[in-house]
Amino acid sequence: MARRSRRSSEARTSVPAAPYIKRVLPFFDPMDEDQLAKMEAQVDWMLENIGVAFRDDPVALEIWKAAGFTPSGEFGDLIKADAQWVRAQCAKAPSEFVQHARNPARSVTIGGNNQVFAPIYGAPFVRDLEGGRRYAEFADFEKLVKLAYMHPNLHHTGLVIAEPTDIPVSKRHLDMVLAHMTLSDKPHLGAITEMERAQDSVDMAEILHGADFMEENCVIMGNVNTNSPLLVDKVVTQAIQVYCGRGQGIVVVPFILSGAMGPVSTAASVAQAMAEAMMVCAFAQLVRPGAPFVLGNFLSSMSLKSGAPTFGMPEPVISNYAIGQLARRVGLPLRCGGSLTASKIEDAQAAYESADSMHSTMLAGANFVLHSAGWLEGGLCTGFEKLIMDADRLGGYQKVLVQGLDVSDEAMARDAYEEVEPAGHFLGCGHTMRNYQTAFYEPALSDSENVESWEEGGSLDMRARAHAKWKTMLEQYEAPAMDVAKREALEAYVARRKEELPDAWY
Amino acid sequence: MARRSRRSSEARTSVPAAPYIKRVLPFFDPMDEDQLAKMEAQVDWMLENIGVAFRDDPVALEIWKAAGFTPSGEFGDLIKADAQWVRAQCAKAPSEFVQHARNPARSVTIGGNNQVFAPIYGAPFVRDLEGGRRYAEFADFEKLVKLAYMHPNLHHTGLVIAEPTDIPVSKRHLDMVLAHMTLSDKPHLGAITEMERAQDSVDMAEILHGADFMEENCVIMGNVNTNSPLLVDKVVTQAIQVYCGRGQGIVVVPFILSGAMGPVSTAASVAQAMAEAMMVCAFAQLVRPGAPFVLGNFLSSMSLKSGAPTFGMPEPVISNYAIGQLARRVGLPLRCGGSLTASKIEDAQAAYESADSMHSTMLAGANFVLHSAGWLEGGLCTGFEKLIMDADRLGGYQKVLVQGLDVSDEAMARDAYEEVEPAGHFLGCGHTMRNYQTAFYEPALSDSENVESWEEGGSLDMRARAHAKWKTMLEQYEAPAMDVAKREALEAYVARRKEELPDAWY
Repeated sequence: MARRSRRSSEARTSVPAAPYIKRVLPFFDPMDEDQLAKMEAQVDWMLENIGVAFRDDPVALEIWKAAGFTPSGEFGDLIKADAQWVRAQCAKAPSEFVQHARNPARSVTIGGNNQVFAPIYGAPFVRDLEGGRRYAEFADFEKLVKLAYMHPNLHHTGLVIAEPTDIPVSKRHLDMVLAHMTLSDKPHLGAITEMERAQDSVDMAEILHGADFMEENCVIMGNVNTNSPLLVDKVVTQAIQVYCGRGQGIVVVPFILSGAMGPVSTAASVAQAMAEAMMVCAFAQLVRPGAPFVLGNFLSSMSLKSGAPTFGMPEPVISNYAIGQLARRVGLPLRCGGSLTASKIEDAQAAYESADSMHSTMLAGANFVLHSAGWLEGGLCTGFEKLIMDADRLGGYQKVLVQGLDVSDEAMARDAYEEVEPAGHFLGCGHTMRNYQTAFYEPALSDSENVESWEEGGSLDMRARAHAKWKTMLEQYEAPAMDVAKREALEAYVARRKEELPDAWY
Repeated sequence: MARRSRRSSEARTSVPAAPYIKRVLPFFDPMDEDQLAKMEAQVDWMLENIGVAFRDDPVALEIWKAAGFTPSGEFGDLIKADAQWVRAQCAKAPSEFVQHARNPARSVTIGGNNQVFAPIYGAPFVRDLEGGRRYAEFADFEKLVKLAYMHPNLHHTGLVIAEPTDIPVSKRHLDMVLAHMTLSDKPHLGAITEMERAQDSVDMAEILHGADFMEENCVIMGNVNTNSPLLVDKVVTQAIQVYCGRGQGIVVVPFILSGAMGPVSTAASVAQAMAEAMMVCAFAQLVRPGAPFVLGNFLSSMSLKSGAPTFGMPEPVISNYAIGQLARRVGLPLRCGGSLTASKIEDAQAAYESADSMHSTMLAGANFVLHSAGWLEGGLCTGFEKLIMDADRLGGYQKVLVQGLDVSDEAMARDAYEEVEPAGHFLGCGHTMRNYQTAFYEPALSDSENVESWEEGGSLDMRARAHAKWKTMLEQYEAPAMDVAKREALEAYVARRKEELPDAWY
């Protein structure tokens, strides 16, 4: 038990860095047949009797009309559909698909038994131990993209790891997409907030991947929220027209704070999320049959004290397990969960909530997990330390998923019992010597030493270790190799579009 | 979203305080039939070919001999047994049983679909924000028993919540058992370190519960560790003679640091734990057929940097899931897991590790969970704040287990969709008004307010809130009502035994 080189700056792990997780562990199905039948009946009832409004996008309504639908309701935009037809439309989307990265070794498979972890999306603030809490700027954003690229437990870099608030809203997407394309070679998302921004993202992807390749393959996706309850606005339908229209992927996520954007019960909110996302999938398949579609769910509970959203609580935990089972029945890839918390800082609250949230996300089989690292303060703030702390834990989940319980002959270690007497020890036996180096996940940020060693090292808490870790990582950052002509073409595209676009801050 | 009375000192929760958890959620079975068959074959191979040594207790060997066994091996104490016979012996133990508390409303059912949470056991140190880390004394111990008694999410008070190191080892058990019997009316454990101390515990239980009641019912249990690998010493066999001899319960727990006390693979270590515990169960059923027996497993992984045990890692997580499935097949109640961590303080590391450990303990269906709250520093230290923080999270697990996914008509909220328009909100609708007060688990220690409110409140982290919480709880402590004659008889017993016993510090 002698001390050796403690806290090396690199994680040592028995899990080889892989582009994504190929799960062998079984799924956890929380519902029996009766519960499942009731939930699916509720989804079908909503599709057929309640419907989903498609608002503010006449083109979307034309697409529905061309498919034989007559929108109804007060605003003439409510779509009700035969549930079997909706399910048949959903069946046109692939149950799994590859999102190609510019580095083929980084391409990920989304759906089926595969799981992909990506960082937080959309926070306007950042926080770190040195700089405190502040509006995120592009310099922060670049650091965060570098860290997501470097971390072996993140498979995908997402997009808005933090909002670069020092760049006009009208131009921000160009700098963000360019940063993901040049600072990293992992797969990432494109912009969605305006149709033109979605188009810029897809056009830049075409420069990077080539039009021919892109015609046949998914290289970029957009991530959009429905306007729950039961409304889909033009951000969603236009993003689908741009992304799915080009055969690219779309992630559609009802965000439901139970009791506000959905009923106060978990079952009803989960069924509503299914109905909303399935109706949008049916629409996406009208736009382009076979377009990659990820069914999303983001469900949060509520504090009775204040109405504030709460995270890592039992209701979202059970919702993760339930939506996993439902999504597998529909055969669509799932996005849900993440390392979510309402805590403002990287304290025990943040970690308890994030771990319960992410443990259920992991076991539920979520195929694409935005927010798997870095989330603080209900998503308003990206924590530099939190990003590194969460990502460290993701390696453990990865091992559970890819290994399950290994019952091979070697794992059974029968020869070891020939060597070791009762009350003896296995430290030096042949089986241990053959296997110890890969036996255990070795996280970089957990300190497991005795209290004396820990005190000698300065009594650092996990935050302080995470701070040192990300600073070191950034010092070691090297940009991945990139074709110079492509890089220049992307830079020229961004420069031209910045000329064309006005500075706007909304 | 107005602020109201924030951080009240009492947890508001939708989970009524219950004496124990009656689970409706399905279990998570991580092994398929093939894996299960291989694991059970390994257990049987160990029982029949490797065996378990019963050392230093001639009476134990006589019991084996009387059952027709001929101990073998270098020391003539190795028992190998037909696996079917061992399984038949295990089948004599009840698959679930009641441990009666002196307050019948606090009695717990151990086994089957029931789960019971108890605090940390055995730490020589305590830590709190005011006093720092120090040797535990009896004054600390009494406070911890009071807190475990008061907390609605702890169902059982265990025994050695911390070691009262200011009392001689030879007398410590008397003060501890008396404290559990008088400061609390929840069920608890008795001492096991020496046969005489086990006898004192059982004799005190007889004073409290009456000899007649005790003859027919379990009112106290002992918790013992095998001396892994594959050795059972007299602490175990004598505790079984005392506890099971009187029809009381015994919890038998192989503690295996993989790579040291078992092979470096999880599957082999889990199979070894099963074989050790099942062989001891067979012995216990020789002592008294039908004696309540809890099959235990405590598996930890190891840091490659130093050989130190690690907690909350993927290997113990998968071991919890695997042992749950195996224990259900044998039909024995299970003890495993807990809120375990190697962290020295109540930081994010402690919470991440504790949550992953406890989430898997919860889902695995562990029937009796020692260490479910308060564990720090690999079990060397009981944290006052950690106890309260962990216990706060246990309420969330309880809700997941007792509620699962409610798909009743009321939960489906169909009437709400008649009231709420697309993009409307459910805040004031009838379904919400009928259900919001019980919809969500409301933890006492999570701060879900916005950053401004949190800063106004002093930017307290979870530790600071937990500190305030346990101080307030102790101020509000009231001892449960107790029959004066029984109390005096117990005090007289302790006084007499303290006269009889020498002061010894080992």
